[in-house]
Amino acid sequence: MSATIIDGTAVAATIRQQLTLEVGRLARKNVQPGLAAILVGDDPASVSYVTAKAKACAEVGIMSETFTLPSDCTEADLELLIKKLNSDERFHAILPQLPLPAHFDADKVIDSINPEKDADGLHPVNLGRLLRGEQNGPLPCTPHGVMQLLRYSNVDPSGKHVVIVGRSTLVGRPLSILLSNKTKGSNGTVTICHSATADLASFTKLADILVVAVGKPFAVTGEMIRPGAVVIDVGVNRIDDATRKRGWRLVGDVEFVSACEVASYITKVPGGVGPMTIAMLLANTVDAAARRAGLEPVSLG
Amino acid sequence: MSATIIDGTAVAATIRQQLTLEVGRLARKNVQPGLAAILVGDDPASVSYVTAKAKACAEVGIMSETFTLPSDCTEADLELLIKKLNSDERFHAILPQLPLPAHFDADKVIDSINPEKDADGLHPVNLGRLLRGEQNGPLPCTPHGVMQLLRYSNVDPSGKHVVIVGRSTLVGRPLSILLSNKTKGSNGTVTICHSATADLASFTKLADILVVAVGKPFAVTGEMIRPGAVVIDVGVNRIDDATRKRGWRLVGDVEFVSACEVASYITKVPGGVGPMTIAMLLANTVDAAARRAGLEPVSLG
Repeated sequence: MSATIIDGTAVAATIRQQLTLEVGRLARKNVQPGLAAILVGDDPASVSYVTAKAKACAEVGIMSETFTLPSDCTEADLELLIKKLNSDERFHAILPQLPLPAHFDADKVIDSINPEKDADGLHPVNLGRLLRGEQNGPLPCTPHGVMQLLRYSNVDPSGKHVVIVGRSTLVGRPLSILLSNKTKGSNGTVTICHSATADLASFTKLADILVVAVGKPFAVTGEMIRPGAVVIDVGVNRIDDATRKRGWRLVGDVEFVSACEVASYITKVPGGVGPMTIAMLLANTVDAAARRAGLEPVSLG
Repeated sequence: MSATIIDGTAVAATIRQQLTLEVGRLARKNVQPGLAAILVGDDPASVSYVTAKAKACAEVGIMSETFTLPSDCTEADLELLIKKLNSDERFHAILPQLPLPAHFDADKVIDSINPEKDADGLHPVNLGRLLRGEQNGPLPCTPHGVMQLLRYSNVDPSGKHVVIVGRSTLVGRPLSILLSNKTKGSNGTVTICHSATADLASFTKLADILVVAVGKPFAVTGEMIRPGAVVIDVGVNRIDDATRKRGWRLVGDVEFVSACEVASYITKVPGGVGPMTIAMLLANTVDAAARRAGLEPVSLG
């Protein structure tokens, strides 16, 4: 048995096409969505993420601009920039690329963003609305991307046992809420596991749908997966690989080969959740522009 | 075997004593905590809750005042009152008694409260901060009360499987976060079950700690409980009882008699979580006053 691959690259491309149409709809009302990305320092991974996001923006017709600050800038510098962007009508969404250098309090920085311009859906007001079951604000991009992957794969979590490994604010926690909402395409029974979980495998083996988001290569192997389960691998890890010219390759949190033998559906890394995260950032930006202009919000179905 | 009763009335009394000392500490700095309760209409249960809260305030030295609005008042009337209370320095916490009459959008009303004066910890900013793991703002009273009951009973959720039945914004969801936080007295593996859960008993039987908050009498019976489990019953339901003069009695969501035979610890209804909810409201009020005055926040340990 070999699992069917859930192709995040393809789903993300479909969503980007849909967003291109939405951008066209807004253009006819003289609205162009704008994203302000903020890059603090020159961490190579962050530079490459921001570049990928700018490229994706251009592709669907979102105007984007990247604001760069030196890594030794102060929190006050960054908050001043955000304050300016909060009142700059060209930008409907603001994205400080995470992680910020160690001397920043990322939560405080996020707090300073106008919640309506919260590209990542991580402002406490938006997380709080999510917790109380609302879905009409910006949703955190990666969890939202996972929901879309399930939807496009016709995997309905309703009445299923969903096990999420990882309790981060970025992924595990908001996803646990999205997956247990009393709504169509959700309604799952959700377990959150983490580093303090005793006997992780005893939980992962119970999962109809297993989502792994711990940032640890091979945290879940095939023998920890229930036969026929749907496996979503959120991890993106670099591991050494002497057979590659650059000396490393990307792997997820799930050992792909052994997992493939037991799962019914599975995502790959790269090409799974990653492209969806960027697509959901675009969706949040277009949606923010539509709401700002008093137009119909974006619906991805 | 018969379970040890977790006595919420006694724990709440201990916490009220502690809060009386905290109020004394604030008094020496000329600060008196103030709670503004808002009662819309004259629903008997709501009237009795608000009366109980006012009495509890008086007992620990919190100044409280109840503002009453007719049940046919508009959302604008209520929001105008809240706006006034937001800027009234006598009050450090504002509590619109829930549920509001059907024509109110409770979420919108809660949104209009200054988050620093959010007596119930239900403002989206406070829920969002909770989601990202912060515990220095007002916490939702019932989940916080459950945490304190576990602590006073020396039940440590760390590494344990906690099953919560019920996904409400008031109880199940915030509690799932408090119980899975990476902190002392938490760190549990948490499963949230609800009305769409297939085979509820298969989950409840896995629980080391079982919390039931669905508002349905006898939703969980003894045979659904794992021997030795800790059982917290959040439900408060009225059922007909011809043997009582008033014709009804209060029961929880758990069938107490059969649960007692298998559980190691269990709460009663009444006298379990209920008194804790009020104690935590008092704690939020005193804490808000301390923070407002720039003094040390309240620590319940």
